[in-house]
Amino acid sequence: AVLPILAAQRSVVCKPASGKSERESDATDEGNPVILCGFGRFGHAVGRLLRSRGHGCTVLDHDPDQVELLRTLGVPIFYGDASRSELLTIAGAANAKILIIALKDAETTLKIVENARRHHPHLKIFVRAHSRVEAYEYLKIGEELVYRDTLDSSLRLGADVLRMLGESDEAAERATRLYRERDEIMVREMAKHRDDSQEFYGAAQEAHRTLDELMRSDIEANSAEAAKAG
Amino acid sequence: AVLPILAAQRSVVCKPASGKSERESDATDEGNPVILCGFGRFGHAVGRLLRSRGHGCTVLDHDPDQVELLRTLGVPIFYGDASRSELLTIAGAANAKILIIALKDAETTLKIVENARRHHPHLKIFVRAHSRVEAYEYLKIGEELVYRDTLDSSLRLGADVLRMLGESDEAAERATRLYRERDEIMVREMAKHRDDSQEFYGAAQEAHRTLDELMRSDIEANSAEAAKAG
Repeated sequence: AVLPILAAQRSVVCKPASGKSERESDATDEGNPVILCGFGRFGHAVGRLLRSRGHGCTVLDHDPDQVELLRTLGVPIFYGDASRSELLTIAGAANAKILIIALKDAETTLKIVENARRHHPHLKIFVRAHSRVEAYEYLKIGEELVYRDTLDSSLRLGADVLRMLGESDEAAERATRLYRERDEIMVREMAKHRDDSQEFYGAAQEAHRTLDELMRSDIEANSAEAAKAG
Repeated sequence: AVLPILAAQRSVVCKPASGKSERESDATDEGNPVILCGFGRFGHAVGRLLRSRGHGCTVLDHDPDQVELLRTLGVPIFYGDASRSELLTIAGAANAKILIIALKDAETTLKIVENARRHHPHLKIFVRAHSRVEAYEYLKIGEELVYRDTLDSSLRLGADVLRMLGESDEAAERATRLYRERDEIMVREMAKHRDDSQEFYGAAQEAHRTLDELMRSDIEANSAEAAKAG
Protein backbone atom coordinates (compact mmCIF):
# COMPACT_ATOMS: atom_id res chain seq x y z
CA ALA A 1 0.00 0.00 0.00
CA VAL A 2 2.26 2.74 -1.27
CA LEU A 3 0.91 6.25 -1.78
CA PRO A 4 1.49 8.08 -5.04
CA ILE A 5 4.97 9.53 -4.95
CA LEU A 6 5.81 12.91 -6.36
CA ALA A 7 9.30 13.43 -7.62
CA ALA A 8 11.11 15.75 -5.23
CA GLN A 9 12.27 19.10 -6.48
CA ARG A 10 15.97 19.24 -5.86
CA SER A 11 16.71 22.52 -7.55
CA VAL A 12 16.64 26.03 -6.18
CA VAL A 13 13.32 26.71 -7.88
CA CYS A 14 10.49 25.22 -5.86
CA LYS A 15 6.76 24.70 -6.04
CA PRO A 16 4.50 27.39 -4.59
CA ALA A 17 3.19 26.72 -1.10
CA SER A 18 -0.07 24.82 -0.76
CA GLY A 19 -2.26 24.24 2.33
CA LYS A 20 -0.58 22.32 5.11
CA SER A 21 -3.33 19.79 5.64
CA GLU A 22 -3.98 19.04 1.97
CA ARG A 23 -0.48 18.73 0.72
CA GLU A 24 0.59 15.20 -0.11
CA SER A 25 3.84 13.74 0.98
CA ASP A 26 6.56 13.85 -1.64
CA ALA A 27 8.97 11.46 0.06
CA THR A 28 10.59 8.75 -1.99
CA ASP A 29 12.91 5.81 -1.41
CA GLU A 30 16.40 6.92 -2.35
CA GLY A 31 18.12 3.80 -1.02
CA ASN A 32 19.97 5.78 1.65
CA PRO A 33 21.32 4.12 4.82
CA VAL A 34 19.89 6.89 7.00
CA ILE A 35 16.40 8.38 7.32
CA LEU A 36 16.31 11.68 9.19
CA CYS A 37 12.98 13.01 10.47
CA GLY A 38 13.03 16.71 11.24
CA PHE A 39 15.38 19.29 9.78
CA GLY A 40 15.08 22.12 12.27
CA ARG A 41 17.85 23.38 14.55
CA PHE A 42 18.81 19.88 15.61
CA GLY A 43 18.32 17.79 12.47
CA HIS A 44 20.02 20.37 10.26
CA ALA A 45 23.46 19.87 11.80
CA VAL A 46 23.09 16.08 11.86
CA GLY A 47 22.09 15.89 8.20
CA ARG A 48 24.86 18.13 6.99
CA LEU A 49 27.50 16.37 9.06
CA LEU A 50 26.48 13.01 7.56
CA ARG A 51 26.38 14.37 4.01
CA SER A 52 29.76 16.05 4.44
CA ARG A 53 31.17 12.56 5.05
CA GLY A 54 29.42 11.18 1.98
CA HIS A 55 26.64 9.26 3.73
CA GLY A 56 23.26 9.32 1.99
CA CYS A 57 20.50 10.63 4.15
CA THR A 58 16.81 10.89 3.26
CA VAL A 59 15.43 13.93 5.05
CA LEU A 60 11.76 14.32 5.94
CA ASP A 61 10.14 17.34 7.52
CA HIS A 62 6.46 17.93 8.22
CA ASP A 63 6.58 21.72 8.09
CA PRO A 64 5.87 22.72 4.46
CA ASP A 65 7.21 26.26 4.97
CA GLN A 66 10.48 24.94 6.36
CA VAL A 67 10.72 22.49 3.45
CA GLU A 68 10.27 25.24 0.90
CA LEU A 69 12.67 27.63 2.58
CA LEU A 70 15.33 24.94 2.65
CA ARG A 71 14.77 24.03 -0.98
CA THR A 72 15.35 27.64 -1.95
CA LEU A 73 18.71 27.26 -0.20
CA GLY A 74 19.44 24.17 -2.28
CA VAL A 75 18.90 21.61 0.50
CA PRO A 76 17.38 18.33 -0.75
CA ILE A 77 14.47 17.58 1.59
CA PHE A 78 11.07 15.91 1.36
CA TYR A 79 7.75 16.97 2.80
CA GLY A 80 6.04 14.30 4.87
CA ASP A 81 4.59 13.48 8.27
CA ALA A 82 6.74 10.56 9.44
CA SER A 83 4.26 9.60 12.13
CA ARG A 84 2.01 8.16 9.37
CA SER A 85 2.99 4.53 9.25
CA GLU A 86 3.43 4.25 5.47
CA LEU A 87 5.80 7.21 5.30
CA LEU A 88 8.84 5.38 6.63
CA THR A 89 8.23 2.64 4.07
CA ILE A 90 8.03 5.17 1.25
CA ALA A 91 11.19 6.85 2.51
CA GLY A 92 13.04 3.57 2.16
CA ALA A 93 13.02 2.12 5.67
CA ALA A 94 13.38 -1.43 4.30
CA ASN A 95 16.84 -0.64 2.91
CA ALA A 96 17.94 1.86 5.58
CA LYS A 97 19.99 0.98 8.67
CA ILE A 98 19.40 4.00 10.84
CA LEU A 99 16.43 6.18 11.74
CA ILE A 100 17.09 9.55 13.36
CA ILE A 101 14.13 11.31 14.97
CA ALA A 102 15.13 14.94 15.46
CA LEU A 103 11.72 16.45 16.22
CA LYS A 104 10.71 18.83 18.97
CA ASP A 105 7.36 17.19 19.55
CA ALA A 106 7.35 14.20 21.94
CA GLU A 107 3.99 12.81 20.83
CA THR A 108 5.02 12.58 17.18
CA THR A 109 8.39 11.15 18.19
CA LEU A 110 6.70 8.38 20.19
CA LYS A 111 4.42 7.55 17.23
CA ILE A 112 7.37 7.27 14.88
CA VAL A 113 9.26 5.06 17.34
CA GLU A 114 6.22 2.80 17.61
CA ASN A 115 5.78 2.58 13.82
CA ALA A 116 9.44 1.91 13.25
CA ARG A 117 9.57 -0.83 15.87
CA ARG A 118 6.45 -2.54 14.52
CA HIS A 119 7.15 -2.32 10.79
CA HIS A 120 10.92 -1.93 10.55
CA PRO A 121 12.42 -3.58 13.62
CA HIS A 122 15.89 -3.77 12.02
CA LEU A 123 16.33 0.02 12.22
CA LYS A 124 18.63 1.49 14.86
CA ILE A 125 16.78 4.47 16.28
CA PHE A 126 18.48 7.68 17.47
CA VAL A 127 16.13 9.98 19.37
CA ARG A 128 16.37 13.67 20.20
CA ALA A 129 14.81 14.53 23.57
CA HIS A 130 13.78 18.08 24.38
CA SER A 131 14.30 17.75 28.11
CA ARG A 132 15.25 15.36 30.85
CA VAL A 133 11.56 14.60 31.38
CA GLU A 134 11.16 13.62 27.73
CA ALA A 135 14.28 11.51 27.95
CA TYR A 136 12.61 9.52 30.76
CA GLU A 137 9.74 8.69 28.40
CA TYR A 138 11.99 7.31 25.68
CA LEU A 139 14.20 5.42 28.11
CA LYS A 140 11.15 3.91 29.80
CA ILE A 141 9.97 2.33 26.54
CA GLY A 142 13.43 0.91 25.96
CA GLU A 143 15.08 3.42 23.61
CA GLU A 144 18.73 3.77 24.58
CA LEU A 145 20.12 6.23 22.03
CA VAL A 146 18.59 9.35 23.51
CA TYR A 147 20.22 12.79 23.13
CA ARG A 148 19.00 15.66 25.27
CA ASP A 149 18.79 18.99 23.42
CA THR A 150 20.88 21.30 25.55
CA LEU A 151 23.08 18.92 27.57
CA ASP A 152 26.17 19.01 25.37
CA SER A 153 26.15 22.75 24.68
CA SER A 154 25.76 23.54 28.36
CA LEU A 155 28.67 21.25 29.23
CA ARG A 156 30.84 22.83 26.53
CA LEU A 157 30.05 26.25 27.98
CA GLY A 158 30.82 24.86 31.44
CA ALA A 159 34.16 23.46 30.28
CA ASP A 160 35.13 26.82 28.76
CA VAL A 161 34.26 28.54 32.05
CA LEU A 162 36.43 26.03 33.93
CA ARG A 163 39.32 26.95 31.61
CA MET A 164 38.74 30.65 32.17
CA LEU A 165 38.86 29.98 35.92
CA GLY A 166 42.33 28.52 35.43
CA GLU A 167 41.74 24.79 34.99
CA SER A 168 43.77 22.87 32.41
CA ASP A 169 42.20 21.57 29.18
CA GLU A 170 42.66 18.08 30.51
CA ALA A 171 40.91 18.77 33.82
CA ALA A 172 38.03 20.57 32.09
CA GLU A 173 37.51 17.74 29.62
CA ARG A 174 37.76 15.06 32.26
CA ALA A 175 35.23 16.81 34.52
CA THR A 176 32.82 17.21 31.63
CA ARG A 177 33.15 13.60 30.52
CA LEU A 178 32.60 12.32 34.04
CA TYR A 179 29.62 14.58 34.55
CA ARG A 180 27.96 13.30 31.39
CA GLU A 181 28.67 9.63 32.11
CA ARG A 182 27.27 9.83 35.59
CA ASP A 183 24.34 11.97 34.60
CA GLU A 184 23.36 9.42 31.93
CA ILE A 185 23.43 6.66 34.54
CA MET A 186 21.27 8.74 36.86
CA VAL A 187 18.74 9.68 34.21
CA ARG A 188 18.26 5.96 33.57
CA GLU A 189 17.86 5.32 37.29
CA MET A 190 15.31 8.12 37.65
CA ALA A 191 13.34 7.03 34.57
CA LYS A 192 12.41 3.87 36.51
CA HIS A 193 10.73 5.90 39.28
CA ARG A 194 8.96 8.28 36.91
CA ASP A 195 5.43 7.12 37.70
CA ASP A 196 5.69 7.39 41.47
CA SER A 197 6.21 11.04 42.43
CA GLN A 198 7.22 10.22 46.02
CA GLU A 199 9.86 7.77 44.85
CA PHE A 200 10.79 10.08 42.01
CA TYR A 201 11.65 13.04 44.23
CA GLY A 202 13.49 10.71 46.56
CA ALA A 203 15.50 9.43 43.61
CA ALA A 204 16.08 13.00 42.37
CA GLN A 205 17.46 14.10 45.74
CA GLU A 206 19.58 11.00 45.96
CA ALA A 207 20.84 11.52 42.40
CA HIS A 208 21.70 15.13 43.14
CA ARG A 209 23.70 14.14 46.23
CA THR A 210 25.31 11.15 44.55
CA LEU A 211 26.50 13.07 41.51
CA ASP A 212 28.05 15.76 43.68
CA GLU A 213 29.68 13.18 45.92
CA LEU A 214 31.03 11.16 43.03
CA MET A 215 32.43 14.24 41.36
CA ARG A 216 34.06 15.38 44.59
CA SER A 217 35.58 11.98 45.29
CA ASP A 218 36.95 12.12 41.76
CA ILE A 219 38.60 15.47 42.49
CA GLU A 220 40.09 14.00 45.66
CA ALA A 221 41.32 10.86 43.89
CA ASN A 222 42.90 13.08 41.24
CA SER A 223 44.60 15.29 43.79
CA ALA A 224 45.95 12.22 45.58
CA GLU A 225 47.23 10.86 42.27
CA ALA A 226 48.84 14.17 41.37
CA ALA A 227 50.48 14.37 44.81
CA LYS A 228 51.85 10.85 44.38
CA ALA A 229 53.14 11.58 40.88
CA GLY A 230 54.73 14.86 41.99
CA ALA B 1 20.66 51.79 46.21
CA VAL B 2 20.52 48.20 47.37
CA LEU B 3 17.16 46.48 47.85
CA PRO B 4 16.36 44.70 51.09
CA ILE B 5 17.89 41.27 50.95
CA LEU B 6 16.19 38.22 52.36
CA ALA B 7 18.41 35.44 53.58
CA ALA B 8 18.15 32.53 51.16
CA GLN B 9 16.71 29.29 52.37
CA ARG B 10 19.33 26.68 51.76
CA SER B 11 17.64 23.78 53.45
CA VAL B 12 15.19 21.24 52.09
CA VAL B 13 12.29 23.02 53.83
CA CYS B 14 11.22 26.03 51.79
CA LYS B 15 8.90 28.99 51.99
CA PRO B 16 5.39 28.65 50.54
CA ALA B 17 4.93 30.07 47.04
CA SER B 18 3.96 33.73 46.74
CA GLY B 19 2.74 35.67 43.70
CA LYS B 20 5.27 35.99 40.88
CA SER B 21 5.01 39.72 40.41
CA GLU B 22 5.04 40.69 44.09
CA ARG B 23 7.80 38.51 45.36
CA GLU B 24 10.99 40.35 46.21
CA SER B 25 14.38 39.21 45.11
CA ASP B 26 16.30 37.24 47.70
CA ALA B 27 19.69 37.34 45.98
CA THR B 28 22.76 38.15 48.00
CA ASP B 29 26.47 38.67 47.38
CA GLU B 30 28.26 35.45 48.26
CA GLY B 31 31.62 36.55 46.90
CA ASN B 32 31.59 33.88 44.21
CA PRO B 33 33.67 34.17 41.01
CA VAL B 34 30.70 33.17 38.85
CA ILE B 35 27.13 34.48 38.58
CA LEU B 36 24.78 32.17 36.75
CA CYS B 37 21.42 33.52 35.51
CA GLY B 38 18.90 30.80 34.77
CA PHE B 39 18.85 27.31 36.21
CA GLY B 40 16.63 25.48 33.73
CA ARG B 41 17.74 22.68 31.44
CA PHE B 42 20.83 24.56 30.33
CA GLY B 43 21.97 26.39 33.46
CA HIS B 44 21.46 23.34 35.66
CA ALA B 45 24.27 21.34 34.06
CA VAL B 46 26.61 24.35 33.99
CA GLY B 47 26.07 25.14 37.67
CA ARG B 48 26.56 21.59 38.84
CA LEU B 49 29.65 21.08 36.72
CA LEU B 50 31.24 24.20 38.23
CA ARG B 51 30.29 23.26 41.77
CA SER B 52 31.58 19.73 41.31
CA ARG B 53 35.00 21.28 40.65
CA GLY B 54 34.73 23.45 43.74
CA HIS B 55 34.01 26.78 42.02
CA GLY B 56 31.56 29.04 43.81
CA CYS B 57 28.60 30.01 41.70
CA THR B 58 25.77 32.36 42.66
CA VAL B 59 22.64 31.12 40.91
CA LEU B 60 19.70 33.38 40.07
CA ASP B 61 16.42 32.32 38.52
CA HIS B 62 13.34 34.43 37.88
CA ASP B 63 10.81 31.59 38.02
CA PRO B 64 9.66 31.32 41.67
CA ASP B 65 8.20 27.84 41.14
CA GLN B 66 11.45 26.56 39.70
CA VAL B 67 13.35 28.15 42.59
CA GLU B 68 11.16 26.44 45.16
CA LEU B 69 11.24 23.09 43.45
CA LEU B 70 15.02 23.20 43.34
CA ARG B 71 15.28 24.21 46.97
CA THR B 72 13.23 21.18 47.95
CA LEU B 73 15.90 19.16 46.14
CA GLY B 74 18.59 20.88 48.20
CA VAL B 75 19.93 23.14 45.43
CA PRO B 76 21.11 26.56 46.70
CA ILE B 77 19.48 29.11 44.38
CA PHE B 78 18.16 32.67 44.66
CA TYR B 79 15.01 34.19 43.27
CA GLY B 80 15.57 37.31 41.22
CA ASP B 81 15.06 38.93 37.82
CA ALA B 82 18.59 39.59 36.64
CA SER B 83 17.42 42.02 33.97
CA ARG B 84 16.82 44.58 36.76
CA SER B 85 20.02 46.55 36.86
CA GLU B 86 20.59 46.41 40.64
CA LEU B 87 20.27 42.64 40.79
CA LEU B 88 23.71 41.90 39.40
CA THR B 89 25.20 44.26 41.95
CA ILE B 90 23.34 42.54 44.78
CA ALA B 91 24.46 39.15 43.49
CA GLY B 92 28.08 40.25 43.78
CA ALA B 93 29.02 41.34 40.27
CA ALA B 94 31.74 43.65 41.62
CA ASN B 95 33.72 40.70 42.95
CA ALA B 96 32.78 38.15 40.29
CA LYS B 97 34.80 37.39 37.16
CA ILE B 98 32.27 35.63 35.00
CA LEU B 99 28.59 36.10 34.16
CA ILE B 100 26.74 33.22 32.54
CA ILE B 101 23.35 33.99 30.99
CA ALA B 102 21.57 30.68 30.50
CA LEU B 103 18.06 31.94 29.80
CA LYS B 104 15.64 30.92 27.08
CA ASP B 105 14.34 34.43 26.53
CA ALA B 106 16.35 36.62 24.14
CA GLU B 107 14.88 39.93 25.29
CA THR B 108 15.85 39.37 28.92
CA THR B 109 19.26 38.09 27.86
CA LEU B 110 19.90 41.27 25.87
CA LYS B 111 18.87 43.42 28.85
CA ILE B 112 21.24 41.58 31.17
CA VAL B 113 24.10 41.89 28.66
CA GLU B 114 23.44 45.63 28.43
CA ASN B 115 23.33 46.06 32.23
CA ALA B 116 26.45 44.03 32.75
CA ARG B 117 28.40 45.94 30.11
CA ARG B 118 27.34 49.31 31.50
CA HIS B 119 27.74 48.65 35.23
CA HIS B 120 30.22 45.77 35.42
CA PRO B 121 32.40 45.95 32.32
CA HIS B 122 35.06 43.70 33.87
CA LEU B 123 32.78 40.65 33.66
CA LYS B 124 33.40 38.01 30.99
CA ILE B 125 29.97 37.13 29.61
CA PHE B 126 28.97 33.65 28.41
CA VAL B 127 25.66 33.61 26.55
CA ARG B 128 23.27 30.78 25.75
CA ALA B 129 21.49 31.25 22.39
CA HIS B 130 18.28 29.40 21.65
CA SER B 131 18.82 29.31 17.90
CA ARG B 132 21.11 30.40 15.12
CA VAL B 133 18.96 33.51 14.65
CA GLU B 134 19.41 34.46 18.30
CA ALA B 135 23.13 33.84 18.01
CA TYR B 136 23.24 36.46 15.21
CA GLU B 137 21.77 39.02 17.62
CA TYR B 138 24.40 38.44 20.29
CA LEU B 139 27.27 38.32 17.80
CA LYS B 140 26.06 41.52 16.16
CA ILE B 141 26.35 43.44 19.44
CA GLY B 142 29.86 42.08 19.95
CA GLU B 143 29.35 39.13 22.28
CA GLU B 144 31.73 36.36 21.27
CA LEU B 145 31.09 33.60 23.82
CA VAL B 146 27.80 32.40 22.37
CA TYR B 147 26.61 28.79 22.75
CA ARG B 148 23.72 27.56 20.64
CA ASP B 149 21.30 25.28 22.52
CA THR B 150 21.18 22.19 20.35
CA LEU B 151 24.38 22.40 18.29
CA ASP B 152 26.59 20.20 20.45
CA SER B 153 24.02 17.51 21.17
CA SER B 154 23.13 17.23 17.49
CA LEU B 155 26.80 16.89 16.56
CA ARG B 156 27.33 14.22 19.24
CA LEU B 157 24.36 12.30 17.83
CA GLY B 158 25.83 12.79 14.33
CA ALA B 159 29.24 11.51 15.43
CA ASP B 160 27.65 8.40 16.97
CA VAL B 161 25.77 7.77 13.71
CA LEU B 162 29.05 8.10 11.78
CA ARG B 163 30.54 5.42 14.05
CA MET B 164 27.56 3.14 13.53
CA LEU B 165 28.06 3.57 9.78
CA GLY B 166 31.58 2.24 10.21
CA GLU B 167 33.73 5.34 10.62
CA SER B 168 36.57 5.33 13.15
CA ASP B 169 36.37 7.33 16.38
CA GLU B 170 39.10 9.55 15.02
CA ALA B 171 37.29 10.26 11.74
CA ALA B 172 34.00 10.93 13.53
CA GLU B 173 35.62 13.32 15.99
CA ARG B 174 37.60 15.10 13.32
CA ALA B 175 34.52 15.60 11.13
CA THR B 176 32.55 16.95 14.07
CA ARG B 177 35.31 19.35 15.14
CA LEU B 178 35.72 20.67 11.60
CA TYR B 179 31.99 21.10 11.18
CA ARG B 180 31.74 23.14 14.35
CA GLU B 181 34.77 25.31 13.60
CA ARG B 182 33.54 26.16 10.13
CA ASP B 183 29.97 26.62 11.19
CA GLU B 184 31.08 29.12 13.86
CA ILE B 185 32.97 31.09 11.23
CA MET B 186 29.95 31.10 8.98
CA VAL B 187 27.49 32.14 11.66
CA ARG B 188 29.74 35.16 12.28
CA GLU B 189 29.82 35.91 8.57
CA MET B 190 26.06 35.65 8.27
CA ALA B 191 25.43 37.77 11.37
CA LYS B 192 26.90 40.71 9.42
CA HIS B 193 24.25 40.42 6.69
CA ARG B 194 21.36 39.89 9.07
CA ASP B 195 19.60 43.16 8.36
CA ASP B 196 19.51 42.84 4.58
CA SER B 197 17.36 39.85 3.63
CA GLN B 198 18.60 39.80 0.03
CA GLU B 199 22.22 39.75 1.12
CA PHE B 200 21.36 37.39 3.97
CA TYR B 201 19.89 34.68 1.74
CA GLY B 202 22.80 35.11 -0.62
CA ALA B 203 25.18 34.63 2.29
CA ALA B 204 23.16 31.64 3.54
CA GLN B 205 23.34 29.91 0.16
CA GLU B 206 27.00 30.71 -0.13
CA ALA B 207 27.63 29.45 3.41
CA HIS B 208 25.76 26.24 2.68
CA ARG B 209 27.83 25.60 -0.45
CA THR B 210 31.08 26.65 1.18
CA LEU B 211 30.67 24.41 4.22
CA ASP B 212 29.91 21.40 2.07
CA GLU B 213 32.82 22.15 -0.24
CA LEU B 214 35.24 22.67 2.62
CA MET B 215 34.15 19.45 4.30
CA ARG B 216 34.47 17.54 1.04
CA SER B 217 37.90 18.93 0.26
CA ASP B 218 38.89 17.86 3.76
CA ILE B 219 37.74 14.29 3.04
CA GLU B 220 39.74 14.35 -0.20
CA ALA B 221 42.85 15.75 1.50
CA ASN B 222 42.54 13.02 4.14
CA SER B 223 42.14 10.28 1.57
CA ALA B 224 45.18 11.55 -0.33
CA GLU B 225 47.17 11.60 2.91
CA ALA B 226 46.04 8.09 3.81
CA ALA B 227 46.96 6.83 0.33
CA LYS B 228 50.42 8.39 0.64
CA ALA B 229 50.94 6.99 4.14
CA GLY B 230 49.74 3.51 3.10
